[in-house]
Amino acid sequence: MPTLQTRATLAEHGVTIDHEGPQEEEKDSNPHLLWSRIRYQCQDAFSEFFGVFIMILFGDGVVAQVVLSNGEKGDYQSISWGWGLGVMIGVYVAGKSGGHLNPAVTLSNCVYRGFPWRKFPVYIVAQTMGAFCASLVVYYNYYSAIDTFEGGRMRTVPPATNATAGIFCTYPAAFLTRTGMFFSEFVASTILMFCIYAFADNKNVGANNLTPLCLFFLIFGIGACFGWETGYAINLARDFGPRLASYAVGYGSEVWSAGNYYFWIPMVAPFFGTLFGGFLYDTFIFTGKSPINTPFMGLKRLVVLQGRGSASLSRSGAV
Amino acid sequence: MPTLQTRATLAEHGVTIDHEGPQEEEKDSNPHLLWSRIRYQCQDAFSEFFGVFIMILFGDGVVAQVVLSNGEKGDYQSISWGWGLGVMIGVYVAGKSGGHLNPAVTLSNCVYRGFPWRKFPVYIVAQTMGAFCASLVVYYNYYSAIDTFEGGRMRTVPPATNATAGIFCTYPAAFLTRTGMFFSEFVASTILMFCIYAFADNKNVGANNLTPLCLFFLIFGIGACFGWETGYAINLARDFGPRLASYAVGYGSEVWSAGNYYFWIPMVAPFFGTLFGGFLYDTFIFTGKSPINTPFMGLKRLVVLQGRGSASLSRSGAV
Amino acid sequence: MPTLQTRATLAEHGVTIDHEGPQEEEKDSNPHLLWSRIRYQCQDAFSEFFGVFIMILFGDGVVAQVVLSNGEKGDYQSISWGWGLGVMIGVYVAGKSGGHLNPAVTLSNCVYRGFPWRKFPVYIVAQTMGAFCASLVVYYNYYSAIDTFEGGRMRTVPPATNATAGIFCTYPAAFLTRTGMFFSEFVASTILMFCIYAFADNKNVGANNLTPLCLFFLIFGIGACFGWETGYAINLARDFGPRLASYAVGYGSEVWSAGNYYFWIPMVAPFFGTLFGGFLYDTFIFTGKSPINTPFMGLKRLVVLQGRGSASLSRSGAV
Amino acid sequence: MPTLQTRATLAEHGVTIDHEGPQEEEKDSNPHLLWSRIRYQCQDAFSEFFGVFIMILFGDGVVAQVVLSNGEKGDYQSISWGWGLGVMIGVYVAGKSGGHLNPAVTLSNCVYRGFPWRKFPVYIVAQTMGAFCASLVVYYNYYSAIDTFEGGRMRTVPPATNATAGIFCTYPAAFLTRTGMFFSEFVASTILMFCIYAFADNKNVGANNLTPLCLFFLIFGIGACFGWETGYAINLARDFGPRLASYAVGYGSEVWSAGNYYFWIPMVAPFFGTLFGGFLYDTFIFTGKSPINTPFMGLKRLVVLQGRGSASLSRSGAV
Repeated sequence: MPTLQTRATLAEHGVTIDHEGPQEEEKDSNPHLLWSRIRYQCQDAFSEFFGVFIMILFGDGVVAQVVLSNGEKGDYQSISWGWGLGVMIGVYVAGKSGGHLNPAVTLSNCVYRGFPWRKFPVYIVAQTMGAFCASLVVYYNYYSAIDTFEGGRMRTVPPATNATAGIFCTYPAAFLTRTGMFFSEFVASTILMFCIYAFADNKNVGANNLTPLCLFFLIFGIGACFGWETGYAINLARDFGPRLASYAVGYGSEVWSAGNYYFWIPMVAPFFGTLFGGFLYDTFIFTGKSPINTPFMGLKRLVVLQGRGSASLSRSGAV
Repeated sequence: MPTLQTRATLAEHGVTIDHEGPQEEEKDSNPHLLWSRIRYQCQDAFSEFFGVFIMILFGDGVVAQVVLSNGEKGDYQSISWGWGLGVMIGVYVAGKSGGHLNPAVTLSNCVYRGFPWRKFPVYIVAQTMGAFCASLVVYYNYYSAIDTFEGGRMRTVPPATNATAGIFCTYPAAFLTRTGMFFSEFVASTILMFCIYAFADNKNVGANNLTPLCLFFLIFGIGACFGWETGYAINLARDFGPRLASYAVGYGSEVWSAGNYYFWIPMVAPFFGTLFGGFLYDTFIFTGKSPINTPFMGLKRLVVLQGRGSASLSRSGAV
Repeated sequence: MPTLQTRATLAEHGVTIDHEGPQEEEKDSNPHLLWSRIRYQCQDAFSEFFGVFIMILFGDGVVAQVVLSNGEKGDYQSISWGWGLGVMIGVYVAGKSGGHLNPAVTLSNCVYRGFPWRKFPVYIVAQTMGAFCASLVVYYNYYSAIDTFEGGRMRTVPPATNATAGIFCTYPAAFLTRTGMFFSEFVASTILMFCIYAFADNKNVGANNLTPLCLFFLIFGIGACFGWETGYAINLARDFGPRLASYAVGYGSEVWSAGNYYFWIPMVAPFFGTLFGGFLYDTFIFTGKSPINTPFMGLKRLVVLQGRGSASLSRSGAV
Repeated sequence: MPTLQTRATLAEHGVTIDHEGPQEEEKDSNPHLLWSRIRYQCQDAFSEFFGVFIMILFGDGVVAQVVLSNGEKGDYQSISWGWGLGVMIGVYVAGKSGGHLNPAVTLSNCVYRGFPWRKFPVYIVAQTMGAFCASLVVYYNYYSAIDTFEGGRMRTVPPATNATAGIFCTYPAAFLTRTGMFFSEFVASTILMFCIYAFADNKNVGANNLTPLCLFFLIFGIGACFGWETGYAINLARDFGPRLASYAVGYGSEVWSAGNYYFWIPMVAPFFGTLFGGFLYDTFIFTGKSPINTPFMGLKRLVVLQGRGSASLSRSGAV
C-alpha cells in the first residue's frame, strides 16, 4: 500500500516518467481479455474523463440547485462546497492518470515536471468530453426545474432575468473591465498551480495522502476569495465543455457572445496562470527536478528540445 | 493496527470473502460466555443495525431541528452536514460488518465484489430495522416540538402546511415528473456507488483510513448538488424504515400515497443506480477482481452460478 | 512516534491501566526540578483543566459572538462549529490525561474501561474549574459588548429580552416538558458515548489519529441534530462551571431557578446517558475488555469490587 | 518520507536547531547553479514571504469578496473559512522555514523552542513584505469592484459608509475600550500559541501530519469565537503589511488614526499574547526542552545568554 500510495501521489503531479514500466502487470489483471487490453490502452483517457465528469456533476449540480431553488436549498457557500468536494472526489476517481482534471495543470506538468507531451492532447480531449457529458446529465436531471425557473421551454443567458446558462459555465460580473477579467482568472490559476505544487512537494511539508482534502480547501478558498468576479473557471475543460453543451441544448449563440465574447478568457488565461504559478514555485521554493533548476533556468532546454524532441526528455533524466 | 485497518477497509466493501477464518478468536474474547457467542453470531446484524441507527439519528434529527425551529437552528446546509456526518460516524460504528448502511450498496457488493449473497437478507432487515427504530427515537425526542409546530396532536404529510412527515422520509418536489423522480434517484445512487468504489480502490489513489471522511464529503455533495428534487434517499432502508415508523405513529396513509405513491421509487431506483455505478467503475477504471474483468463481462458467470451456486464463487478465486 | 500515538489514543479512553509505569521518565525530563515534580504529580489535573478551558473558551466564545452581534458575526451553524472545534482542540491539549473533558465520560471510562476510580474526583474538579475560569475569560473579553447588548450594567437570564446568561450555560426551549428535557440530554449523551467508544475501538474501523477530527464531527452533529431543545450541555463541567461563574459575576439567582430549576438536569442526565451509551456499545459491538464481556455482564464484578477495591481491578488483568 | 515528514513538522515549530546540517545537499539539487545557491541562502525568507503571501491572498481576498458583494457572495462564516484555509495552505507553502507566518510565533519559538534569534529579523521582514505584496494583488484584483462599491475613485476608512479599508487590515468595533482592544488581541494570541504548541507536542496527542488541518480549525475558531471585536489580527505582519499597502494606494492617514490610533495594538499585543501562551503551555503541560523546564524557570538562562550569546544555546543541549 505505501508503494501504491506513493506512486499514485507522484503520478498525480506528472512526475512518474516511466509510467509504463513496473505498473504494467498490476494495471491489468486479465491481459487475455479484449476489454482489459482496451482499458489498459485508454486508462489515461477514461480516468481523466470520469474525474472531470464527477467534478462537473457536483460543481454544475450545486449551482443548479442553488440557482433553481432561488437560494432555498443552498447559498453561495454551498457552491464553494460543491466545487471543492467535486475536485476532491474527482481526484480520487482519476488517480490513475494523475488527477489533473484541468488542461492548464497538464500543461504545467509537461513544462515543469517532465510529464510526457504526447499525452497532452489525449488529456485535454478527455477532460473536455467529461465536462461536456456531465453537464448534459445535470441539464436533464434539472430539466423540469429549469422549465419552472425560466417559465417555459426557453433557455436564456445572463444578464437576462431568470437566466439559467450560468449553471453550466461562467459569465463575468458586469462591472469588470476586460483586463480585470483576464487578471482575475490569471491570479486564481496562479494560486491554483502554486499551491498544488506545494502540496505535492515532499521536500516541503507535503500533503501526501491528504492531498485530495487539501485540494478541497484550495478550491473552496479560490471560490470564497476570488470566485465572485469571473466565477473562477480556471480551467478550459470545466468552462468550454459545459458551454458547448449549453449551446447544443439550445441556449443560443449568446453563450459565446455574452460578456463581450468573454468565453475565450477562461480558455486562455488559465494556461498563463498555471505556467506562472509553476514558475514561481519552482523558482523560489522547489529544489527537485525542474527546468528552472537547470542552467539558464530551462531556456537551454528549449534549444535541446528542438534537436531531440520532447519524448526524449524523460529519458535524459536530469535534463 | 495496520492489519486491522486494512482488514476493516476491505470488509467495508465486501471483499473479505473468508470472513469467518482468521478473525474468529479476535472477534470474541470470551467464547465461553453465552452472550459473546450470540454477539458473534449476530455481529453483522448488530453492526448494520447500529450503523444505520446512528446515521438516521443524525440525519432525521437535523431535518427535525431545521424544520421545527423554522430554520432558526439550522438551514439547508445543516441538513447536508447532518446526513454527511451521520453516514461518516455510522461507518465508524458499523465497521465490523463493512459499513454498508444501504441495501443497494450491499447488493452491489454482492454482484461486483463477491460479498456473500446469503448475507444479503440479513443486512437488508438489520438496516431497515435500524432506520425504523432511530426514527422513533427522533420522533419522541421532538414530540413536544412537533406538537407545537403542527399546532396540536395531528400529524400531516406534505404538501400540507406545517407538515412534519418530511422529517422522517423523503417527498419529491412538486414540479417533478415521474421520470424525473426516478432519474434523480438513479443518478444520485450511481454517483454514490461509483465514488465509494473509487475510495476503496487501492490501485487508484485509495482513501484508506480517510474513507469515512470521504464519505462525509460524498454525502454532503450529493445533498448539496442533487438533494433538492427528491431529497436524496438513495437507500431503501433510510426511506422505507422511517416511512413505516411515521405510519406507525399516526401520520396516516398519505405517507404512502403522497407524490402519487412516490414511496416505491426510493425503494427501487437505488438498486438500479448502484448496479450501474458499480458497472461503470469496474468497466472503465477497476482492474481488480470483478465479474466485469472476466470473460464476457461476467455474463458467463451468471451461467456458472446456476450450476455451482453463489457460495462457490468466492472459492474459485479469479472466477 | 507510532508508540506515542498509540499510547495517547489508548489513554484517551482510559484503557491504559499501568499509567504510571513506562511513561514515568519520559513524562518529566528534569526530575530534579521542583516544578517538574509538581507538574508530574498534577499532570492529570492540569491537563483536564486546560482541555476544558480551551473547549469553553471556544464554545462560550462563539455563543457570545453570535448572540451579542445579533447574528451579524455568525449564526447557529457557527455555534456548531465553535463547540465542535472546541472539543477537538481541547482533546489535543488534554491528551496526557486522556482528553475526557467531561465528568460523564470519565465515569463511563471508570465503569467500562477500567479507568482508576481514584482519579474520578480529581478529574471532575479539574474539569469544572477549567470551565469556570474559561467562562470568566469570555465574560471579561465581551464585557463592553454585553453592556451594549443588555443596555447597561444589568445582567439578565432567559426568557428576558436581551438576556445574555445563555452565553455561559444552557437554558431549555420553552415548549419542553420536564421529561422531554431529561430525555433530550439523555439521548445526546448516549450518542456521545456510543460514538466515542466506536472511534476508540481498534477492532472496529478505529479512528486512530483522526479521533479529534471525528470528535469535531460528532459534536457538530449533536449540536446540529439534537442541540436545539436543551442546548446540548451533555456535560456537568461544561454547564455547572459556567453557570456558577455567571452567578458569581452577578446574573442573579435566576441562573438556578430558570426553566423551573432546570440546572440539575445537565448535571445528572449526562451520567445516565453515557452509562447507557457505553452499555449499548459494549453489549452489541465491543469484544475487548469490558465488564459486559465478563460472566453475568459485569454484575459479578460489583461483588468483587466490594472485596478488593477498585484499584486492584487494573492489576487483575482480564478482570 | 517519514523522515522528511518528521523533520518538516519539527521545523515548523522551530525546534530544528542544526537546521543547516544534514539538510544541505538535499535542499539544493544543483549547487553549481548561481540561482540555486541564492535560493539556498534565502530559503527562509522566500518561504515565509510566500507563506504569508498565500495567507493574505485568501484572507484579504475573502473579506474583499464578502464586503464588496454586500454579502451576496459570502457571509461572516466565509471569512472564517478564508482565514482558516489561508493559514492552512500557507503552512504547506512555508514548510521549509517552519511555517511561522507570524512574527509573534517566531518570537515565541525563539524564547521557548531554541529557534535562532539571528533569524528573527529575517522572518519579520519577509513576513511583512509578503503581506504587503499580497494585499496589493488583492487590491488590484478587486479594483473595479472597489470603485463600484465606494462610488468612485475615493478610498475611505471605517467608520465611513462604504468604507473598504477594512478589507486589508483590522479596525476595532466601536463599543470597545482601549483596554478591551488590547485584552481581546492578547487573549486570541494566547490561545493561538497555546494550541500550536499542543499540536506540535508529540508527548501529547500530537497533530503530526494533520497539523495544517488543525491550524485551519484553530484559526476558524478564533475567528468565529473571538473575531468580532478587533478582527483577530493576532499578527504584526498580517495587519501592518496590508495597512501600509492601503496607505500606499491612497486610503489616507486615517488608516493610522482610525480607532484612536488603534494600529499599534495588533502590532504589540500579539507578542505579549504568544509569549504568555507559550509560558502557560510550557509551565503546565510541556515536558520537553524549554527554558521553563530549567532551573529558575529559565530566568537563569537570561544570565547565561548574556555571557555566551544565543547561538551557543543550541549547542549546550539541555541548557
